[in-house]
Amino acid sequence: MEPALRKHYEWRGKYELELRVPLDTNDDLALAYTPGVALPCLEIHKDESKSFDLTRRWNTVAVITDGTAVLGLGDIGPLASMPVMEGKAILLKKFGDVDAIPLCLNTKDPDEFVNAVALMEGSFGGINLEDISAPRCFEIERKLQERLSIPVFHDDQHGTAIVALAAVNNALRLAAKTPDETKVVVNGAGAAGTAIIELLIKAGFNDITACDISGILYRGKEGLSDAHISLAEETNPRNIKGVLADAMCGADIFIGVSAPGCCTAEMVRSMSTRPIVLALANPTPEIMPDEAIRAGAFIVGTGRSDFPSQINNVLAFPGVFRGVLDARARMITDSMKISAAFAIANCVCDNELAPDYIIPSVMNKKVTDAVAAAVRGCCE
Amino acid sequence: MEPALRKHYEWRGKYELELRVPLDTNDDLALAYTPGVALPCLEIHKDESKSFDLTRRWNTVAVITDGTAVLGLGDIGPLASMPVMEGKAILLKKFGDVDAIPLCLNTKDPDEFVNAVALMEGSFGGINLEDISAPRCFEIERKLQERLSIPVFHDDQHGTAIVALAAVNNALRLAAKTPDETKVVVNGAGAAGTAIIELLIKAGFNDITACDISGILYRGKEGLSDAHISLAEETNPRNIKGVLADAMCGADIFIGVSAPGCCTAEMVRSMSTRPIVLALANPTPEIMPDEAIRAGAFIVGTGRSDFPSQINNVLAFPGVFRGVLDARARMITDSMKISAAFAIANCVCDNELAPDYIIPSVMNKKVTDAVAAAVRGCCE
Repeated sequence: MEPALRKHYEWRGKYELELRVPLDTNDDLALAYTPGVALPCLEIHKDESKSFDLTRRWNTVAVITDGTAVLGLGDIGPLASMPVMEGKAILLKKFGDVDAIPLCLNTKDPDEFVNAVALMEGSFGGINLEDISAPRCFEIERKLQERLSIPVFHDDQHGTAIVALAAVNNALRLAAKTPDETKVVVNGAGAAGTAIIELLIKAGFNDITACDISGILYRGKEGLSDAHISLAEETNPRNIKGVLADAMCGADIFIGVSAPGCCTAEMVRSMSTRPIVLALANPTPEIMPDEAIRAGAFIVGTGRSDFPSQINNVLAFPGVFRGVLDARARMITDSMKISAAFAIANCVCDNELAPDYIIPSVMNKKVTDAVAAAVRGCCE
Repeated sequence: MEPALRKHYEWRGKYELELRVPLDTNDDLALAYTPGVALPCLEIHKDESKSFDLTRRWNTVAVITDGTAVLGLGDIGPLASMPVMEGKAILLKKFGDVDAIPLCLNTKDPDEFVNAVALMEGSFGGINLEDISAPRCFEIERKLQERLSIPVFHDDQHGTAIVALAAVNNALRLAAKTPDETKVVVNGAGAAGTAIIELLIKAGFNDITACDISGILYRGKEGLSDAHISLAEETNPRNIKGVLADAMCGADIFIGVSAPGCCTAEMVRSMSTRPIVLALANPTPEIMPDEAIRAGAFIVGTGRSDFPSQINNVLAFPGVFRGVLDARARMITDSMKISAAFAIANCVCDNELAPDYIIPSVMNKKVTDAVAAAVRGCCE
């Protein structure tokens, strides 16, 4: 049996509950349960904001999925997604000291999903959506954030976008280029690709070309979904047409959130000077780092821990939630995401920054604090 | 500030998450999260029952309310109920080693509540409903158990009923009476009263009279709810009419789940020989124990820890959930409840049993194990 599977059988779940109060005597029970518990109940009944002071709500986030886009495995259903949700929950605890409750919901109807999560709002201080397929993830996140007064964050979108922007920032420092003079190609126009594009636009990038399996997205293209029509509106200023290879020609940055092997050495050779390749398909990237370097890539990042410059959401989401929980923010804004990206980028000192070291290690304990501080700073 | 309130402000929540796996190195992350986590996901995708082996589901219960009947405080809403849900969750952990997730749902529509909980089924091994008002609690529990293949247990009903039956068992041993020759009066025909009556019937009691604020429930009475029409069908074999005092005349056992002070000394004096009084209204019982004793009560139990014979649900629910989780039972049956009641009663040894000691202390560590074993025994 594979070690990871054997370990999961041994662990039988990756978290458990721990008491923060004593329950050893009748007096303990009288304080923490009846009759003492009536007093905090009444206090919250008088002033609902006290739920953030008198229960664990201030530090608790739900990690919720419908199981429709789990890792690279696809629509494997809610039950089969739970090992990932538990993993996410313990990462939030370990890196952000956030108490996270893993939940899977057995529905593919976005409104049913939204309604169920909205009913639970009072139990949590934030909602981390996870592994929900596009385009339903956009609708779910938007409708939920409209209804809730706690932050809603689809990590597959925004966590990925924050860390990608952090890597791009540092790569551009090394390449001595600025966002406004940089041509970016994003391959993959699902949840992550869309969020990356939207965050790059907010961060000042104005020449982005989005591609999916059908090739370049452009205005007037036949058969685009509503989400892709919007993307085509926001991107591709020269309205170029063609396939990925056409987009890559002369590009400064390639960001792949797509499929193994779809970026060729020839494409990298066709890029601009000092090309930056972020090949984030996991576990097998769009192009292997050694191949990209041989083809002239100046910087290569992947999603993998066994190559330099791992673009890993763990750098972002624990600090983002730590920050919004501390600030009791009602939503996660674009400025928070951009500030978080800069905070991650700045965890690599000037004298450390190098083509094979553009992003801090996930084990760098400064990162979460820096991200949380940046997010809190946007609330002041 | 009252100590219990001050403590709740200090605690800021009564539970937190604890990791069961290491996350200190990249290798740790690769096992517990990506890429290792894909293997248990696929294993569950192949065989959904593996969710009980590869996630925490086997040991996790949701403690869920709509906040409509919180303690003695009534309909204070979902947010204000959370200190109780957290209290319940830590009691489940402390006494039953069950990981319990406190959740409040912001709806008073039973179907909306049922639907939201049903969607979450895959996240849990059991559902503990809590502090939901009657009669909606009956509908919610029934509909949920029909839809789910994990146990659903409304503790305010069945936990109370189990512990009351345990106390009644031991009280009858002392009073040298048998169920079939015993007249029982249950005052209060809400969630707890109804469940107590139904469990007593299953346990062989055949002369039970139910009363509520309108007096004795009898067949043909005007203005009864559907739930009370059913109760009147199942109880009151002599179909007597009148007020509580009429029911009490000649009764062997009084069980109050009603309101402070509604049982008078005169009523106790009108009871049969060696009368048994379980005055469970909390914090102020239907009759104070000293007054009941002066009026001739042989045995008096209350819900309070500062008097003998505390009828406390903590004796039942941790062991019940421990038992059904261990057995991976799909529901909680009447025979489990009756076995649990006998197990609790039997934790008081013959040589300890006395009119002021009919039920074990909540701090008696044998109780949960005995209840869990009894519940498991019903599954074999």
